[in-house]
Amino acid sequence: MGPHPAVAAIRLAVRRVLHDVLNHHCAQDRHEAPLVLAACSGGADSMALASALAFEAPKLGVRAGGVTIDHGLQEGSDLRAAEVAVRLRALRLDPVDVVSIHVGREGGPEAAARDARYAALDAAADRHGASAILLGHTRDDQAETVLLGLARGSGTRSLSGMAATTGTDGRYRRPFLDLDRQTARKACLVQALPVWDDPHNTDPAYTRSRLRHEGLPALEKCLGKGVVEALARTAQLSRDDADALDAWAAEAEGTVLDESGTLDVAALFALPPAVRRRVLRRAVIAAGSPAGSLFARHIEEVDRLITAWRGQGAINLPGRVGVRRQGGRLVVRQG
Amino acid sequence: MGPHPAVAAIRLAVRRVLHDVLNHHCAQDRHEAPLVLAACSGGADSMALASALAFEAPKLGVRAGGVTIDHGLQEGSDLRAAEVAVRLRALRLDPVDVVSIHVGREGGPEAAARDARYAALDAAADRHGASAILLGHTRDDQAETVLLGLARGSGTRSLSGMAATTGTDGRYRRPFLDLDRQTARKACLVQALPVWDDPHNTDPAYTRSRLRHEGLPALEKCLGKGVVEALARTAQLSRDDADALDAWAAEAEGTVLDESGTLDVAALFALPPAVRRRVLRRAVIAAGSPAGSLFARHIEEVDRLITAWRGQGAINLPGRVGVRRQGGRLVVRQG
Repeated sequence: MGPHPAVAAIRLAVRRVLHDVLNHHCAQDRHEAPLVLAACSGGADSMALASALAFEAPKLGVRAGGVTIDHGLQEGSDLRAAEVAVRLRALRLDPVDVVSIHVGREGGPEAAARDARYAALDAAADRHGASAILLGHTRDDQAETVLLGLARGSGTRSLSGMAATTGTDGRYRRPFLDLDRQTARKACLVQALPVWDDPHNTDPAYTRSRLRHEGLPALEKCLGKGVVEALARTAQLSRDDADALDAWAAEAEGTVLDESGTLDVAALFALPPAVRRRVLRRAVIAAGSPAGSLFARHIEEVDRLITAWRGQGAINLPGRVGVRRQGGRLVVRQG
Repeated sequence: MGPHPAVAAIRLAVRRVLHDVLNHHCAQDRHEAPLVLAACSGGADSMALASALAFEAPKLGVRAGGVTIDHGLQEGSDLRAAEVAVRLRALRLDPVDVVSIHVGREGGPEAAARDARYAALDAAADRHGASAILLGHTRDDQAETVLLGLARGSGTRSLSGMAATTGTDGRYRRPFLDLDRQTARKACLVQALPVWDDPHNTDPAYTRSRLRHEGLPALEKCLGKGVVEALARTAQLSRDDADALDAWAAEAEGTVLDESGTLDVAALFALPPAVRRRVLRRAVIAAGSPAGSLFARHIEEVDRLITAWRGQGAINLPGRVGVRRQGGRLVVRQG
C-alpha cells in the first residue's frame, strides 16, 4: 500500500524540485552531495515540506537540512524555535539551525519581518554552502498574495504573486505553490507530525491574516470554491505577461534612446501605451528614482508629455528626478 | 453659485464624451445635429446620466434621447418602464423609447439578459440613426467586473473590465467609468430626481449582486477603502497590456505560419510564453474552435507539444479542432 494521497502529493512536489536542483548542481560541482535546506516555522505547511524533504533527499543523494527562525516578537519564541529544531532533527534533517533575528519597523511589520527573515535564510545557506532553500508557500498563500497585489492597483506585475524560483541563482524554491494548504495539513495529520499554528496567522492586525480568514472566504461565498485556484492561475498568467512586456520595453528602449540619454517623443508615441509606459518607467528608474516610490500615476503624468502635450512644465518625480519635454525629445535628469 | 459638485462631476463626464462623439460625427456627416441616446433603467446611475445628457447636449448642438428596456422578468415591469419613460420625457429627452425584450436562458440569466438588452439598444440606435448610446456603468460596476474576471482565472484580458468605448463604430460610451456610484446617487438626490432600485441589484441569486453587497465590502474591510479604485485601475492597465500582447501575437503569427497553414515549432519556442500561447490560441480559433469554449488549460496542453515534447498524440479541442506535432511543425485542423 502506498502512502496517503496527501503524503504522496507533498513528496512528488518536493521530488520534482530536487530533480531540478540536481540538474543545476551537476553543472556546477560534482564533488559533493548538494545540501538542500527547508525553511520551517513549525506550521503545517513547512512541517509537511520538511517531512517530504527528509523522505526524498536521501533517495536522490541529496543532503537535507533545516532552518527555523526566531523572530523574537513573542514571549517564549526562543523556546518555540528550539522545539521546532528538535522536531526537524527527529525527521533526521542535518544540519538544523535556529537563527534569531531582529525585526525592525521599516515598510511595516510584515515587510520588516520578511526582509529580516530572508537575510537570515541567505546567511544560513551561505554558511552551509546550501544549493537551495525550500519554502512552504502553498496555492492559498499565492491567492492571498495576488489579492494583496490587486489592492495596490499597479498592474500585471503586481498580480503575478510569488515565483516558484527566486533569489540569487534561484536558491529559493517553492515546491507547494500548486498544492492547497489543506493537503499540507492532511499530510502532517496522517504522518502524526505535531504542528504549531503561528498566532500571527490568525491575528486580524495583519492584512494577510484578515484576507485569509475574512476576505477570501467572503469571495468564495460570492464567486464559488474555485477562487483560490483562479487567483493562482492569474498569478502565473500575469507573470508571463509581465515578463513578455518587460522584454519588449527593454528592446524598445534601445530604439527611442539617443546617445545623449534623451528619448524620442515620436518613437515613444508609436509604441503601444503598455510598452511606452514601461519604457518611461525604466528611464525614470535609471535616472535615480527609487522603484518602490514610483506609482502608476507618476508614469501617467510623464506619459501626458507625449500623448497630451500642451506645453506643460517639468514633471517632478521621487528621488529628485525631473522629466521635461524639449522639442521632440524627453529629457530625464536627476538633481 | 455653480451646481453641486456631484452634479458638476456627472455633467463634466458627459460633456467630455459628447465632445468626442462630435469629433467623430463631424468627420462623417455635417448636415444634421447628431443624436445621442441614454440607456436608462431608472436606477440612480442611469438617471444621473440622462439628466446630465439632457443638460449638456443642447449646449453642444446635440439632440438627446433615451431608451428604457422592459426585460419582462418581473410582474409590472411594463408599468415600471412606462414610468421611466415619463421621467426621461420630463427631462426633455426626445425621442424616448420603451423597448420590450424577451430574455432567453443561454449562458445563464445575467448573460442572456445582457445579450437581449444590447440587441434592443442596437436596434433603437439604428432606428433613430443615433451616433452614440451612453451607458451608466460606474467605477463600482467596473470593480465588480474585474472581480468576476478574476474568478475566471483566465488572465490579463479577463481582468480588463469594460472599455469606455465599445460596440460597432464605438457607439457605446461609458462616461461614468471613472465616477463612483455614490456621486451618481448624490447627483440624483440634489436634483430631486426620483430613482428606482432594481430588486435584481440586491437579489443574492445574482453573482454580481452578491459581490456588490458581500464580496467587495469584505475586501474593503481587509484591504482598505481604496480597493474599488485599485480594481478600476487594474482594469485599465490590464486592458492596455492585453492589447499590446495581442498586437505582438498577431505580428508573431506571420513569422511562424507557413503557406500550408502549419506552425513552425522552433520559431514558436523562441517566443516568450505569453506571446506563444496567444499565437496558439489564435491558430486554434482560426481553425474553428469557439473562443468561449477555449480555456487556458486547453492552450497549455497544446503548448506542451512545443515545450514538453515526448511524442504525445493529437490534442483534441472544442469545435472538433485537433492539433498534432508532425516533425518540426504543428498541424491545426478541424474535422
